[in-house]
Amino acid sequence: MYSSYDVIIVGAGHAGCEAAHAAATMGSRVLMITMNLQTIAQMSCNPAMGGVAKGQIVREVDALGGMSGIISDKSMIQFRMLNRSKGPAMWSPRCQSDRNMFAWEWRKALEENRRVDFWQDTVSEVIVLDGRVSGVKTSLGVEFTAKAVVLTNGTFLNGKMFIGEKVFGGGRTAERSATGLTEQLVSLGFESGRMKTGTPPRVDGRSLNYGIMEEQLGDENPGKFSYTNTSPLKTQRSCWITYTNQDVHDKLKTGFEKSPMFTGRIKGLGPRYCPSIEDKINRFADKDRHQIFVEPEGWDTVEVYVNGFSTSLPETVQYDALRKIPGFENVRMFRPGYAVEYDFFPPTQLKPTLETQLVKNLFFAGQINGTTGYEEAACQGLMAGINAHRNVHEEAEFTIKRSEGYIGVLIDDLITKGTEEPYRMFTSRAEYRTLLRQDNADLRLTEKGYAIGLASQERYDNMVQKREGVTKLTEAIRTAKVKPEDVNHWLESKGSSPLREKNSLYTLLKRPEIEQKDVDELLAMFPELPQEGTEIVEQTVIEIKYEDYLNREKQNAEKLDKWENLSINPTFDYDQLKALSFEGKEKLKKLRPSTIGQASRISGVSPSDVSILLVYMGR
Amino acid sequence: MYSSYDVIIVGAGHAGCEAAHAAATMGSRVLMITMNLQTIAQMSCNPAMGGVAKGQIVREVDALGGMSGIISDKSMIQFRMLNRSKGPAMWSPRCQSDRNMFAWEWRKALEENRRVDFWQDTVSEVIVLDGRVSGVKTSLGVEFTAKAVVLTNGTFLNGKMFIGEKVFGGGRTAERSATGLTEQLVSLGFESGRMKTGTPPRVDGRSLNYGIMEEQLGDENPGKFSYTNTSPLKTQRSCWITYTNQDVHDKLKTGFEKSPMFTGRIKGLGPRYCPSIEDKINRFADKDRHQIFVEPEGWDTVEVYVNGFSTSLPETVQYDALRKIPGFENVRMFRPGYAVEYDFFPPTQLKPTLETQLVKNLFFAGQINGTTGYEEAACQGLMAGINAHRNVHEEAEFTIKRSEGYIGVLIDDLITKGTEEPYRMFTSRAEYRTLLRQDNADLRLTEKGYAIGLASQERYDNMVQKREGVTKLTEAIRTAKVKPEDVNHWLESKGSSPLREKNSLYTLLKRPEIEQKDVDELLAMFPELPQEGTEIVEQTVIEIKYEDYLNREKQNAEKLDKWENLSINPTFDYDQLKALSFEGKEKLKKLRPSTIGQASRISGVSPSDVSILLVYMGR
Ligand SMILES: Cc1cc2nc3c(=O)[nH]c(=O)nc-3n(C[C@H](O)[C@H](O)[C@H](O)COP(=O)(O)OP(=O)(O)OC[C@H]3O[C@@H](n4cnc5c(N)ncnc54)[C@H](O)[C@@H]3O)c2cc1C
Ligand SMILES: Cc1cc2nc3c(=O)[nH]c(=O)nc-3n(C[C@H](O)[C@H](O)[C@H](O)COP(=O)(O)OP(=O)(O)OC[C@H]3O[C@@H](n4cnc5c(N)ncnc54)[C@H](O)[C@@H]3O)c2cc1C
Repeated sequence: MYSSYDVIIVGAGHAGCEAAHAAATMGSRVLMITMNLQTIAQMSCNPAMGGVAKGQIVREVDALGGMSGIISDKSMIQFRMLNRSKGPAMWSPRCQSDRNMFAWEWRKALEENRRVDFWQDTVSEVIVLDGRVSGVKTSLGVEFTAKAVVLTNGTFLNGKMFIGEKVFGGGRTAERSATGLTEQLVSLGFESGRMKTGTPPRVDGRSLNYGIMEEQLGDENPGKFSYTNTSPLKTQRSCWITYTNQDVHDKLKTGFEKSPMFTGRIKGLGPRYCPSIEDKINRFADKDRHQIFVEPEGWDTVEVYVNGFSTSLPETVQYDALRKIPGFENVRMFRPGYAVEYDFFPPTQLKPTLETQLVKNLFFAGQINGTTGYEEAACQGLMAGINAHRNVHEEAEFTIKRSEGYIGVLIDDLITKGTEEPYRMFTSRAEYRTLLRQDNADLRLTEKGYAIGLASQERYDNMVQKREGVTKLTEAIRTAKVKPEDVNHWLESKGSSPLREKNSLYTLLKRPEIEQKDVDELLAMFPELPQEGTEIVEQTVIEIKYEDYLNREKQNAEKLDKWENLSINPTFDYDQLKALSFEGKEKLKKLRPSTIGQASRISGVSPSDVSILLVYMGR
Repeated sequence: MYSSYDVIIVGAGHAGCEAAHAAATMGSRVLMITMNLQTIAQMSCNPAMGGVAKGQIVREVDALGGMSGIISDKSMIQFRMLNRSKGPAMWSPRCQSDRNMFAWEWRKALEENRRVDFWQDTVSEVIVLDGRVSGVKTSLGVEFTAKAVVLTNGTFLNGKMFIGEKVFGGGRTAERSATGLTEQLVSLGFESGRMKTGTPPRVDGRSLNYGIMEEQLGDENPGKFSYTNTSPLKTQRSCWITYTNQDVHDKLKTGFEKSPMFTGRIKGLGPRYCPSIEDKINRFADKDRHQIFVEPEGWDTVEVYVNGFSTSLPETVQYDALRKIPGFENVRMFRPGYAVEYDFFPPTQLKPTLETQLVKNLFFAGQINGTTGYEEAACQGLMAGINAHRNVHEEAEFTIKRSEGYIGVLIDDLITKGTEEPYRMFTSRAEYRTLLRQDNADLRLTEKGYAIGLASQERYDNMVQKREGVTKLTEAIRTAKVKPEDVNHWLESKGSSPLREKNSLYTLLKRPEIEQKDVDELLAMFPELPQEGTEIVEQTVIEIKYEDYLNREKQNAEKLDKWENLSINPTFDYDQLKALSFEGKEKLKKLRPSTIGQASRISGVSPSDVSILLVYMGR
């Protein structure tokens, strides 16, 4: 401490932890300053990592050499691959976490990194000299100097918590808020705004009647997040599902006149896609029930997280309404839900590296940029940490394209479009989501992570081994011949038409009736194929089955890459292009993008709409 | 929740946890309300339990059926029996704890108790009707009703933290303080005061040079606190010892003009026996060095607690001074030390049950009563929890006499003498310390704990087994005869004179040259003795070796018990009693106690002084 650092990370949430780990692993001397060393990597809200689109992000963070996947693997109590019944682009890993273990594993990981130092304090000022950051000042009055600073303040900047008509200053329950920093940044010329998010009540698992809820087991063969050799779970804890009903909604409505949101006391915009229960019954008045996930908070605690019931209504209303939920008749509450309103900085003020445009070597990452969610925060932290290190060492910027990863989509969305409400990742935000699968994040990104000195040699070797395995198996499948008598019986059992003559295994695999889950049986009939592990087999089969589609997507992506800046005449007549999708045409007519790149990023404008435009423009 | 409780416990420190566990185990419906459920049983200061006099308290809490011993056993990383070289009254168990595990084990223990409910909130008011407590109000505006309430607010009431010239509101680093409650209690007629305590900086173990410090290993055969079947440690972590020097002191002195204590900004009185480092160099100006214990914070963290270096000097001064300590040349600080000033309620306002005199069924326990230390807090919580339960169920008061336990000494001291400075337990406070040993807390107290339904059957059976074992072994030793030829060689090797003729083993054991550690060798020569475990052997030997002395003490205690209220003439001429000790006589002359009880509790007045008085008075 007091010595000079390469990079200072302010905050120890998901963003701060990934940033610190990345910069230090690459070789920077890092100082992590956070308000409370006992709350490093504290999960503010739900005890879970991953989920649709978010699980893909964790896999990408892992592929690049980040830690969120490894930490999640070490602290999970249940694992499920969501959307297994849909196409592989939709498969999304998700785990329930042990809240305490998650935080402790992160802390250990950072402590084990000899280039990370720690200091407990509140940063109140960023020191800027000649448009370049040179350190921070804290509320203890200490000054630390550094070549780069990453701010990951989460929900703490002028944080205010709301429960019914009560308001408390604070960034998270019983934790203090951070004051002064927003004002100083604004005085430097930054624009700030206000957002809000909320969390549900926690209840006593001993008071619930699980007998009348649906049990949600973990996967039978649980997977994991990291491409490294972490171990999958051997035992798991179940979650439970129940539903609200009209009674619950009626009870909740009795609190609406005291709701901090409906009465306008909360000014900040909340996450539309992660609404509070009062929002849900307000906006979807016709729905007579909403799903509630009853999630344990860890291996050995009775505390339970009531997912789907985020609320800032008065706590008596919360309690009365909870008791109307089947299984919650005798519920005891541990802590009420609450909303938190905080400052954020519109992310259009950032470069693609997450460096601010205004101040050299000052980076923003995580919820401070108007996002919501652990995974969104973690991947920004990783990218900011990488680029802070690279700036300090005068290396080129490190970015990820939209066609290379959800991380690329997220950052591009943020810096080009900004966000009006807390930004959350969805698969629909990614034009090339079929390319950006959870199964191939390593093939997409580990090489890049390795090249910059973040992903380890071991990780890289694993990836190369997988890539080679896939190539070998693909070749073998391509040359393997199938005799009708060997497979017709099996084909019939799958409802697939029998072969007339010898055929290649390759063609057979492409049949849609032969699903991913059947493949093992089929391949087992060909003992001459190289014996590879599940991961390689799965990867190979996905690439064979969706080959044509994936190739087309890749070409689209390349084309788009090439023509990103091709301009479109502002008076262009979209109606003449009959082939355009209806929604795409409407959006294009309304928003009139000035480049192909911009057109491609309008939600509702599909990759094929863009292709049609390009064809028309002669490309 | 919202239902009515038997007992509400406010606060989840050591006092609150023991109180909740005791009342609930005995059968009360308990609600624990605390500001942050994530910080249940958080050790505010040093990661250690026990020590001189304090270890005895933990053993007593355990013997009565409390949990501090079991939790300590489950979370310790090192165990030492202090003062082994002194008489058994001085033996004091002490452990280093894993800070996180300690808190987590407590939380699990409470969660496992089906009669304990939890509510996260800040209590801002005690509801009193007709001089009787009937519940609490919280800052969320919730009301809970209960038949009894135990306040264990620790250092949080109007807590203010100081580092150099900076002041922050808060009860503990990064935690908020509790406001409103003191004022309300004062409006009810309670008297309140201000005290202060302090904590040292935490540093990065990776930055220390252990090579030049003294290693302090755990005991070779580590013991434990609980009389139940918890397991002793198999591996341990070491602590380290180093020393301050003139350079360190000089550096520290540069901060004195900014010291919140020396400049009078802290008004509360600090613990004289647990002084800050600045206090030490001020008060003991002639000492050129002070011992520093370098203590790990857990099994798998690099954070280190710098025991002996409590300070509230400016953090730059802390840092500069630390670096002058051998082994700390390159130290990196994690968090600076600080002082905290808080409200307490002079404990003379309490009954022997810790119920307040003013409000029926309202109890105070822990630091709120002007004590300091985890063990002091834990035992008060236990006694308040027991008595809250018994009041609610209309059972008689439960108290412990000064001659029965340190717990009795502590509470009697508090309620009769009050305390000007944070009260800490010492062996010297107990007149009958030879009776109040760590080895016999179960024999002294488990029967009492069992009778009130707190100590479990198993615990009781263990104690009975031990008691019977001791009786049996004592009898056997009493009758065993020793032949000179069998032991003389051995006696010589111990420097003890040889036997001339057959003698009893009993008499031999009383020889002072035969130390506790030699006894096993001696007893091994008598295979006809019943084969008992270490605990029983140790107990038996102690009781044989010190038999006469202990008997005298017991008689003294009984006598004193009997004559407690015997009055002394205010003009009594102490000088005529030549046999009085010098110090005793001076104190008696100065303080002129009005009863024998009071006289006996004056520090410096020894039990034998009291005997002399009694003899003179014809008793
Ligand atoms: C009540 C609540 C409800 C939420 N609900 C949802 C939800 O429903 N869905 C969802 O996806 N996400 C939700 N979130 C958001 C999710 O928790 C965040 O997106 C994620 O934690 C952000 O990570 P972060 O690293 O950006 O910040 P955080 O996890 O908030 O961490 C910020 C860190 O910075 C530190 N810090 C802040 N200011 C300073 C300073 N000046 N000096 C030093 N240290 C500082 C803090 O101590 C903390 O360690 C919720 C958050 C909260 C608080
Ligand atoms: C900075 C510091 C330094 C210390 N140094 C030493 C030392 O050197 N030596 C030593 O022996 N002891 C020291 N102590 C004291 C030791 O920590 C305490 O004696 C012991 O923790 C007291 O236990 P307790 O249960 O009384 O209170 P605490 O452990 O302080 O617990 C109080 C509990 O009450 C809760 N609470 C408070 N007010 C409310 C409210 N209104 N509503 C709901 N919940 C509330 C808090 O959240 C907390 O859970 C120090 C303490 C601090 C904070």
